[in-house]
Amino acid sequence: MAKAKIDVFDLLEKIRCEKPVVHHLTNWVTIYDCAQVVKVMGGSPVMAHAKEEVAQMARIASSLVLNIGTLTVDFVEAMKIAAHAANEKGIPVILDVCGAGATRLRDEKCFELLDETHIHIIKGNASEIARINGEEVSTKGVDATEIDKDLFKIAQELAIKRKATVVVTGKEDIVTDGEISYLIKNGDPMLTHIVGSGCMAASVVGAFAAVERDLVYASCAGLICFEIAAECAAAKSKGPGTFKENIFDCLAALDEETIKKNEKLERL
Amino acid sequence: MAKAKIDVFDLLEKIRCEKPVVHHLTNWVTIYDCAQVVKVMGGSPVMAHAKEEVAQMARIASSLVLNIGTLTVDFVEAMKIAAHAANEKGIPVILDVCGAGATRLRDEKCFELLDETHIHIIKGNASEIARINGEEVSTKGVDATEIDKDLFKIAQELAIKRKATVVVTGKEDIVTDGEISYLIKNGDPMLTHIVGSGCMAASVVGAFAAVERDLVYASCAGLICFEIAAECAAAKSKGPGTFKENIFDCLAALDEETIKKNEKLERL
Amino acid sequence: MAKAKIDVFDLLEKIRCEKPVVHHLTNWVTIYDCAQVVKVMGGSPVMAHAKEEVAQMARIASSLVLNIGTLTVDFVEAMKIAAHAANEKGIPVILDVCGAGATRLRDEKCFELLDETHIHIIKGNASEIARINGEEVSTKGVDATEIDKDLFKIAQELAIKRKATVVVTGKEDIVTDGEISYLIKNGDPMLTHIVGSGCMAASVVGAFAAVERDLVYASCAGLICFEIAAECAAAKSKGPGTFKENIFDCLAALDEETIKKNEKLERL
Repeated sequence: MAKAKIDVFDLLEKIRCEKPVVHHLTNWVTIYDCAQVVKVMGGSPVMAHAKEEVAQMARIASSLVLNIGTLTVDFVEAMKIAAHAANEKGIPVILDVCGAGATRLRDEKCFELLDETHIHIIKGNASEIARINGEEVSTKGVDATEIDKDLFKIAQELAIKRKATVVVTGKEDIVTDGEISYLIKNGDPMLTHIVGSGCMAASVVGAFAAVERDLVYASCAGLICFEIAAECAAAKSKGPGTFKENIFDCLAALDEETIKKNEKLERL
Repeated sequence: MAKAKIDVFDLLEKIRCEKPVVHHLTNWVTIYDCAQVVKVMGGSPVMAHAKEEVAQMARIASSLVLNIGTLTVDFVEAMKIAAHAANEKGIPVILDVCGAGATRLRDEKCFELLDETHIHIIKGNASEIARINGEEVSTKGVDATEIDKDLFKIAQELAIKRKATVVVTGKEDIVTDGEISYLIKNGDPMLTHIVGSGCMAASVVGAFAAVERDLVYASCAGLICFEIAAECAAAKSKGPGTFKENIFDCLAALDEETIKKNEKLERL
Repeated sequence: MAKAKIDVFDLLEKIRCEKPVVHHLTNWVTIYDCAQVVKVMGGSPVMAHAKEEVAQMARIASSLVLNIGTLTVDFVEAMKIAAHAANEKGIPVILDVCGAGATRLRDEKCFELLDETHIHIIKGNASEIARINGEEVSTKGVDATEIDKDLFKIAQELAIKRKATVVVTGKEDIVTDGEISYLIKNGDPMLTHIVGSGCMAASVVGAFAAVERDLVYASCAGLICFEIAAECAAAKSKGPGTFKENIFDCLAALDEETIKKNEKLERL
């Protein structure tokens, strides 16, 4: 059962104190940003993808983040090995279904990962999540596209079907485990003008999941922190270049007052 | 036949409206910057290199950018599959011959790509373009080195030989299809003090080629935008670190007035 | 024999004038930063890892930097080929033992590189260097952890055993060839809050080793420059995001006066 209230700052402080190792197998485009976003929150990111070491690395980690942004067949094999080790150890596994719907390979490999390993948090934008729920979607690469069906219903269905927490990012974010659901209204349009917001959001969720077993709770807290940091960053940036750097500054400096004042969370 | 006048801003607005997908198979050093530079102009970058998906990804794209900066034999095979799919669909293919002349592998793979697929735009610095035209050059890795022969003549020869638009970047840039040629005198020396200017220039050209079939026209417009953005960025930067981020800010904010006031284009 | 006094600025100017090619086989997380840090100092970074070209690339370089941060078995094979070519040519090879102690694979591959090729400079944080010296350490991924034994003794032992210069980075850095040893007290705590400080430090040392044959001297000079730049950057940054960019600005602008005023070097 979800806790009555989400104490976002409390979890952020937990990351800052415990410095959990967050193991990533992610894409080559935003790999630095994924590591840096975990680091500036106080976590200890580790990026390792050799089949020979991923299991051992996952075993020293507190959560595992998988992102198929620049997948290859071989790379997904390493993901499976890491996910199996994470499942055995009992740490949460986050899957960013980046670009699902764009190619058959992406869809197939997402389904393989979901079928063969236990994924605790499935994260994507609207069209990606719809595709992973089995809907037909027409996508334009890795950017979100319009979908017809009710997104909240899709997210709930997928959560129940996959026994997972589903995180749908967008103008408003949905977090649901099929039963308990939240809407997060934080964030800034500038996030859609840079590369890597989605990937960073998944890594932030990974860091929060490393310190909190209630994954709906952890996902909401992670998104709130990341998106309030983005709001602060947008306020002092002159464009997408400085905005990206300022997100890191703002996330590192994020305090209780700022979170409490800006948090926009709704129970659905 | 080239249009009488190049309306640079008009094309930039077209990218902002149409948000074309620009598929990249690029290097691991500047992959983020290549994606980000396309994104901040309003395009939709996608980076995908698995042999199993590159053809499908190229078919949803409006242009394809290849960059051999950190090539492997296998990676070039994926490039060929993507280029064949792009050729079939009829979208422009841009090849950044990054580091040509530095090793035999780079030269051979560039020649293979040029022989086996149709490359529409060949982009490089002086020594790289000279090498691809068959000249003997001594290079120092990936940075441009002096060449003896007349660069404009080399570019023209290569364009005719390869039935391609040739883009030579440097203090002044040459764009030619062998018949119609332009010189672009925009840019800032700071561009030579950061990693990735050349790669970003190729991606920008790729985004413009995605919305304009006249590739000389598209290449000139792309370089002018990128380099005027660099001029603006240099004016407000304290060094190469902030300069790189400011390029993104300036490119996102680029307006008609700034382009018209600063554009330095000469018909050759 | 070490020179009486280390003229740090003199070496930095040598890099700025000679623009040495620094060949890297490094990790995918910080590959841009490794290239950029060499570039902003005036060097010419080249990143190439294809087995077919690494030997030829190493032969046009003035130093070779290896970093196992995101190693695979295959990638280390390419490292060995590059190191053999570098050894034949007589240029210094720097090995960043990134993440040693975290997995068996990392330890084994470091030992293979050290056994099969001549590594001139071994660089790591306290726990990594301890592990490479054969100590049992418990690490948390790639971040340094406490070690029991006297670190200076470990560094000296390793230097003698491996006939190498050993560089241990941390709050204070140790540089030793087993006989001559220095302590560097520059730097800023902010360096521990970003991803890539260690990798960049290794690349900076690589650039200095490219222009100075006394590798203790070169290593000290490199660390001093990098860490004074970090001090300047910290003074004008609002957080880890802007700090990272400001390091590049400060390193590019570093002058003799700033170095002389801030340099904190002790002979041990």
